[in-house]
Amino acid sequence: MLKRLNHVAIVVPDIKEASKVYKTNFNANISEPKSYPEHGVTVVFIELENTKIELMEPYGEDSPIKKFLEKNPHGGMHHICMEVEDINKSLDSLNNNKVKILGTGKPVKGSHNKPILFLHPKEFCGTLIELEEE
Amino acid sequence: MLKRLNHVAIVVPDIKEASKVYKTNFNANISEPKSYPEHGVTVVFIELENTKIELMEPYGEDSPIKKFLEKNPHGGMHHICMEVEDINKSLDSLNNNKVKILGTGKPVKGSHNKPILFLHPKEFCGTLIELEEE
Repeated sequence: MLKRLNHVAIVVPDIKEASKVYKTNFNANISEPKSYPEHGVTVVFIELENTKIELMEPYGEDSPIKKFLEKNPHGGMHHICMEVEDINKSLDSLNNNKVKILGTGKPVKGSHNKPILFLHPKEFCGTLIELEEE
Repeated sequence: MLKRLNHVAIVVPDIKEASKVYKTNFNANISEPKSYPEHGVTVVFIELENTKIELMEPYGEDSPIKKFLEKNPHGGMHHICMEVEDINKSLDSLNNNKVKILGTGKPVKGSHNKPILFLHPKEFCGTLIELEEE
């Protein structure tokens, strides 16, 4: 059921500074910052050979990552996103196992315009997991 | 300079229970647990199509992840491991930038028997980064 690791997401206090850190130390290949007001984040992607790292800075007062940054002012690892073949099949199986899905409990369109789900970290050893249909 | 994401490492309180969670919910492909007394961890790998997730349980009283688990009793994301072509070149460049390297500050043999370095999380927006020679 699990396919590719789509990305690892890291919350950062200042996306320009964070991009500079990855550029200076690793000469990393980094995209231009893009804001998603509907998701409350500004992001850049660091391209690796097999996957990517998403750096996220809060956007707006209602950003869903604002609290995370208050608890972790230097930033920190926020979630991993894994791809699945059929998100509705995954959802059925997670519902059967009584896993807590965040939000409405239904797939929503993510920033890649593909259906996604976020699973409660308590069910997965403290790790916030995003599933995205491949 | 950055190549592949080798793995994402997650600390868990009970590696058998954690493996069961990934098996039951995702039908994940998981290796048998292997203990590394010299590194103070027992690990399993969850194979994804493009990379892997390493689940780590503390091994022994001096385990380097014991404190992390005390702070995060349900577990949590611990580090990301990225591959580099030449670890000594990477080290030179990091030293030039005055980045704090953990431990002795020199590459050591990791559990894949390849030279690795751990970089201080404060320098990288709260993310502990392992570099491994590819």
